[in-house]
Amino acid sequence: MAGYDRAITIFSPEGKIYQVEYAGEAVKRGWPTVGVKCKSGVVLAAEKRKISALFDSSSLDKIYLIDDHVAASPSGLLADARILIDYARDVALSHRFIYDEPIDVEFLTKAVCNLKQQYTQFGGARPFGVALLIAGIDRHGARLYQTDPSGVYIGYFAAAIGAESGTITEYLEKNYKFDLEMGDCIDLAVKALASAVEISDSANIEVAYATIDEKKVKKLSQDDVATLLAKLGLLKKS
Amino acid sequence: MAGYDRAITIFSPEGKIYQVEYAGEAVKRGWPTVGVKCKSGVVLAAEKRKISALFDSSSLDKIYLIDDHVAASPSGLLADARILIDYARDVALSHRFIYDEPIDVEFLTKAVCNLKQQYTQFGGARPFGVALLIAGIDRHGARLYQTDPSGVYIGYFAAAIGAESGTITEYLEKNYKFDLEMGDCIDLAVKALASAVEISDSANIEVAYATIDEKKVKKLSQDDVATLLAKLGLLKKS
Amino acid sequence: MAGYDRAITIFSPEGKIYQVEYAGEAVKRGWPTVGVKCKSGVVLAAEKRKISALFDSSSLDKIYLIDDHVAASPSGLLADARILIDYARDVALSHRFIYDEPIDVEFLTKAVCNLKQQYTQFGGARPFGVALLIAGIDRHGARLYQTDPSGVYIGYFAAAIGAESGTITEYLEKNYKFDLEMGDCIDLAVKALASAVEISDSANIEVAYATIDEKKVKKLSQDDVATLLAKLGLLKKS
Amino acid sequence: MAGYDRAITIFSPEGKIYQVEYAGEAVKRGWPTVGVKCKSGVVLAAEKRKISALFDSSSLDKIYLIDDHVAASPSGLLADARILIDYARDVALSHRFIYDEPIDVEFLTKAVCNLKQQYTQFGGARPFGVALLIAGIDRHGARLYQTDPSGVYIGYFAAAIGAESGTITEYLEKNYKFDLEMGDCIDLAVKALASAVEISDSANIEVAYATIDEKKVKKLSQDDVATLLAKLGLLKKS
Amino acid sequence: MAGYDRAITIFSPEGKIYQVEYAGEAVKRGWPTVGVKCKSGVVLAAEKRKISALFDSSSLDKIYLIDDHVAASPSGLLADARILIDYARDVALSHRFIYDEPIDVEFLTKAVCNLKQQYTQFGGARPFGVALLIAGIDRHGARLYQTDPSGVYIGYFAAAIGAESGTITEYLEKNYKFDLEMGDCIDLAVKALASAVEISDSANIEVAYATIDEKKVKKLSQDDVATLLAKLGLLKKS
Amino acid sequence: MAGYDRAITIFSPEGKIYQVEYAGEAVKRGWPTVGVKCKSGVVLAAEKRKISALFDSSSLDKIYLIDDHVAASPSGLLADARILIDYARDVALSHRFIYDEPIDVEFLTKAVCNLKQQYTQFGGARPFGVALLIAGIDRHGARLYQTDPSGVYIGYFAAAIGAESGTITEYLEKNYKFDLEMGDCIDLAVKALASAVEISDSANIEVAYATIDEKKVKKLSQDDVATLLAKLGLLKKS
Amino acid sequence: MAGYDRAITIFSPEGKIYQVEYAGEAVKRGWPTVGVKCKSGVVLAAEKRKISALFDSSSLDKIYLIDDHVAASPSGLLADARILIDYARDVALSHRFIYDEPIDVEFLTKAVCNLKQQYTQFGGARPFGVALLIAGIDRHGARLYQTDPSGVYIGYFAAAIGAESGTITEYLEKNYKFDLEMGDCIDLAVKALASAVEISDSANIEVAYATIDEKKVKKLSQDDVATLLAKLGLLKKS
Repeated sequence: MAGYDRAITIFSPEGKIYQVEYAGEAVKRGWPTVGVKCKSGVVLAAEKRKISALFDSSSLDKIYLIDDHVAASPSGLLADARILIDYARDVALSHRFIYDEPIDVEFLTKAVCNLKQQYTQFGGARPFGVALLIAGIDRHGARLYQTDPSGVYIGYFAAAIGAESGTITEYLEKNYKFDLEMGDCIDLAVKALASAVEISDSANIEVAYATIDEKKVKKLSQDDVATLLAKLGLLKKS
Repeated sequence: MAGYDRAITIFSPEGKIYQVEYAGEAVKRGWPTVGVKCKSGVVLAAEKRKISALFDSSSLDKIYLIDDHVAASPSGLLADARILIDYARDVALSHRFIYDEPIDVEFLTKAVCNLKQQYTQFGGARPFGVALLIAGIDRHGARLYQTDPSGVYIGYFAAAIGAESGTITEYLEKNYKFDLEMGDCIDLAVKALASAVEISDSANIEVAYATIDEKKVKKLSQDDVATLLAKLGLLKKS
Repeated sequence: MAGYDRAITIFSPEGKIYQVEYAGEAVKRGWPTVGVKCKSGVVLAAEKRKISALFDSSSLDKIYLIDDHVAASPSGLLADARILIDYARDVALSHRFIYDEPIDVEFLTKAVCNLKQQYTQFGGARPFGVALLIAGIDRHGARLYQTDPSGVYIGYFAAAIGAESGTITEYLEKNYKFDLEMGDCIDLAVKALASAVEISDSANIEVAYATIDEKKVKKLSQDDVATLLAKLGLLKKS
Repeated sequence: MAGYDRAITIFSPEGKIYQVEYAGEAVKRGWPTVGVKCKSGVVLAAEKRKISALFDSSSLDKIYLIDDHVAASPSGLLADARILIDYARDVALSHRFIYDEPIDVEFLTKAVCNLKQQYTQFGGARPFGVALLIAGIDRHGARLYQTDPSGVYIGYFAAAIGAESGTITEYLEKNYKFDLEMGDCIDLAVKALASAVEISDSANIEVAYATIDEKKVKKLSQDDVATLLAKLGLLKKS
Repeated sequence: MAGYDRAITIFSPEGKIYQVEYAGEAVKRGWPTVGVKCKSGVVLAAEKRKISALFDSSSLDKIYLIDDHVAASPSGLLADARILIDYARDVALSHRFIYDEPIDVEFLTKAVCNLKQQYTQFGGARPFGVALLIAGIDRHGARLYQTDPSGVYIGYFAAAIGAESGTITEYLEKNYKFDLEMGDCIDLAVKALASAVEISDSANIEVAYATIDEKKVKKLSQDDVATLLAKLGLLKKS
Repeated sequence: MAGYDRAITIFSPEGKIYQVEYAGEAVKRGWPTVGVKCKSGVVLAAEKRKISALFDSSSLDKIYLIDDHVAASPSGLLADARILIDYARDVALSHRFIYDEPIDVEFLTKAVCNLKQQYTQFGGARPFGVALLIAGIDRHGARLYQTDPSGVYIGYFAAAIGAESGTITEYLEKNYKFDLEMGDCIDLAVKALASAVEISDSANIEVAYATIDEKKVKKLSQDDVATLLAKLGLLKKS
Repeated sequence: MAGYDRAITIFSPEGKIYQVEYAGEAVKRGWPTVGVKCKSGVVLAAEKRKISALFDSSSLDKIYLIDDHVAASPSGLLADARILIDYARDVALSHRFIYDEPIDVEFLTKAVCNLKQQYTQFGGARPFGVALLIAGIDRHGARLYQTDPSGVYIGYFAAAIGAESGTITEYLEKNYKFDLEMGDCIDLAVKALASAVEISDSANIEVAYATIDEKKVKKLSQDDVATLLAKLGLLKKS
């Protein structure tokens, strides 16, 4: 075990790249994000943990719009996430500029993950310590991809990343149905998040969704989030 | 022994390059793929393991078309595989563009493996942790090559890579005949895969084949795979 | 533990980047700075410790104007801070030159933090050993961001960095109210600083503020600081 | 001993370059190749070991034509060999193109070995783990050179590289005569190979020869090899 | 402790950069220099230690003119000092050439210190092992800055660097008054130096001063230094 | 001792560069070469050890013509020697081309040694493991230089490098006289070589000489060498 | 102690750069050189040790003319010295070409030492293992500088470098007088050298001098050296 994890991006005798696995630990310590896909669209719900009484939660996004039709939510190192989000926006914008059409969600995801992969193969830099859920609508319908620090991306019907993602995923596996309508799908995403996270302030939850009909990602306002949490009875102390 | 495996791409006293051997371990932990060549063509059959109940298996290819007449299926690190598949597609496309004819399968395989070799000789990067089966039809007939992380490629009548490749290869050695017709060849490939892998969902198996007559790789639809698995009695629980 | 902290910018098994954490220690040993945001604007108050009887405190700024509407105050390695301040000024000036309008405070903060992030991911350089409070007024109102050596920035209603920042933050959490007028806001910032720091000379305190109405950062003259400290009864021995 | 073999291409206290010596071990583990020079020409005979029952021996060359008048056969890492063979072909082709005449065998050998030497002197890359027998006819007559991973090349009347090369060389030393005719020379090469290798399939032996009269390398067909092996009584079980 | 000081420019767990601290030790072993600022100007006094009876003290400057209005005196590695002095002269000359006015002393000091900072952050080079006192007159009046190997610069009313700088600083703290006239200021600087250094030859002391009225650095001739030392009774044996 | 010899081209506490000293060990293990200068010219005599019964000694030079008037003979790593010989030929040819006259032997030697020196000062490459005797005639008369891996060259009246060079040098010191005629000078060189080396085949000795009158290096034919060895009674078993 | 001396050009905890100190050891093992300045000029005297009975001392300079008016004599690694001598000649020649006047001796010395300094600050190369005495006449009169591997240069009335430089310096300190005439000055330099070195052959001593009147460095012929040594009674056995 000794030594294999110190040199950047080399294989251990078991064929593992420890730096990538350790970057995964940074992801596991990030604030959780949930994604759920249903027949009419896709939803992202994310926690912004109240790190201090004086924290201005409005100053920080946990769900980022990449383009009109696609959004991403990271878990892990926030500074790393910002770099990848900016990169994704550049890729999406270039695509629109060159081809005059929205980029396919998988194509966008692949571009981001190819960048991630390079940081796992070449020396002189560490892998990105961040996972992303990328969700959107394209000509193939609703799409939801989970990416990890290795540069792998995999499509899911519902997925969770970050702290307590095990608990959240269990919740999703028990309660997921593909034929949900958008309203129920949003409820499921938020309830899954709440299954592992204590929500004390609506300002600490972000929700975004996109319907196949509209092909446009919309974020719930803080008031709408508050109403939703109240309806679901998920606000611990208000 | 201590130390030889830490520095990138140097020889051990026995003349081995440990980083390459360890990359081989990453291959052995990948989902298996089988290739079989017969007198009328060549077949690839691959497993996409159900990593989660919420995994959207349609989001992930295990067999990639490189050009009309050639396909590849990787085992090992999926992010690394993607880089090599993209590279192979570039090489094949350039060849078609420049020479106005499909690239020879061996020439394509050699290009991919020369790239792999470079990552075993120069410092500052790790080897690719991925093996590929490359199958296709060219002017020499049906071709099936197995490549490994060292950059070596070898032609086989039938071959398996990834987890349980030992068991699958044993099955192939016992049951292989070159004078199979395409239908029996497909059956053999799938049965070989099933000899080591429990198949619980037709969505988790991909099959592609190409006949010498048509010179075109075709993937079986998921329905066709289901029918085939049913016919062979290989679906464990549906 | 041994070893993970020696190689630059690699992950430890827990997913931490020790060099970044150690850079944080340099910040904790810096002279403290306080930032407070209120409904009418934002305030920065900083200590310049009397390092010697012959120290010419007028020769050293602890609060730097970045542009008319935004200022920054560092804690940590002063030489590193200077590099980031110069960079921030370049970014702000370019923005004004290109777009003919003042830069948004968050956009400026992000530019500085993207630079910081790069020094945490690539080999061959150490992270910046400095945190910054960036405060200003833009079209969104009053803004206060805290940045750290990792390249993360987070908005706060009130924040402290540097030595004794724990004590100062505690003071702020107990006494902060958003509906303060500017005068009270300045008092709070200075009293928070004084809660952890012994002030023996008005020359060793710098205070700057900006109101939403004026959109302009102003520094208190040394006389004004002396008057303020006298009013608040905070000067230990004059 | 400890340490001198880890850093790339540095001298040990005895003046040895261990990486080069270890690369030699990779050569010793390769499939053997034999070269024999006689008054009328030069012969190469090489083994392609049957690594698997499903191995398609026709997919792999062990003797490579470099140009009409010169061939090479490697022992050691096959992927490394491919790089050197391609390099040799480029050198030979350029020579023909620029000077409109076949390249001298020694000049070609020197070019290949100069490339090898560079990989023993500069950091950042490992030596080539491959030896080559280079044989051909040029204006000086028949030529046979053995190259090793250090970049040294030496001319021999008869030589063997790869596994069991000690045994084969012993056989050659006992039985070699310069005044052999080509037929006997081919017999000697194959018998020398068979002195250390069990031949179970004619497909696993390659033989090439060139006569001074024709100045052209010719490979024996698989049928001719079978006939030859039968004549010499060297096929163990057919 | 072990290890953190070996790798260049990385943080220790306490947030220190040992290479910078060790460079500081080189400074502490240098010949001392004193700077004193008063209401009418600024003075530098420096020792050139008699390293050998055959040392030609006229061959070596300890106080360097950077431009008409500014001078610098180093302690530490003399070869490093030379590089920084040359750099400072380039910066000052360029400024005069471009803006047709003398450079501000702080601006000059900052340029030198930004260069120093870079050598503390990037790998592949060590920090400069030299501190500088930079003194001069500009439109803001008399200026005196002390710089250290980290790239920090701080203004002082009086300061000392190099061997015995603690003793000299103590002397300065006891005897310093800002309202000195230039003559007394020069006396103070020399006496401070003499408080820690045995002066046996006037050739081993350099003194330079600049008055606000003249804005010009002047060096005392060796005769003037001898007269001064005699007046102050500081010459041990003549 | 531990460690100083591992890092490339750094000094040990005694001011030695171990990599250079170890490269010297490679030289000491090389086949010996002798050079002798006399009033009428200069001679080189070198051994090509019979490394195998099948070794084709005609394929390998031990004495290389650099230009008409100058030759060189290496001891040490043969592949390294080849690089230096090629470099020397380039330098000599360029000189002739540019200045239309033969290059001075010292100037040529210096060019080769400057290349060698670079490989002892910069990281990323090892020193050349080869010494050269460079002998020739130029406008200053007969010249004989010995170069070593450090890049030092020194003129000698007679010198030996390689294995047993101590014994050979002793022989030379006892028997050398400057006023020898060329014939005796050749005899001395060969006898010196034979003092440490058992000569069993005239093919394994090379001799070259140049007279001041002719300014041209000539190699003895193998027959002439055989005659010479017979005359001197130096052939052990023929 | 352990470790600080292995990494190139980093500081030890005491602020020393061990690589530079170790390079100094290489200097101390070099053949000694003496320089003496007097009112009418400057002298260099150097030993070329008889390293072998067959050593051709005429092939090696120990005192190098840099330009008409300036010479240099190294102690330490001869191959390194050659690089610096060539560099100095380039600098002097360029100066003459550009400004049409001889270069100042100090300016030349500084250029050489700036080159040396760079090799002490940047990684990837070792310091130059050589000290130089640089002597000459320029518009300021006679000049004598001693440089060391750190890049420091210091003017002396008389100085010695290399082996036994301590003994020689002691001799110089006891016997030096500045008001010597050139003849006595030469005598002093040679006697100082002889105080530590046994002189058995006039060919092993080089002497050069330059008078202020002539501004030209002249080397004594070997006959003149012999006469001088005889006159001074310094030849041990002739």
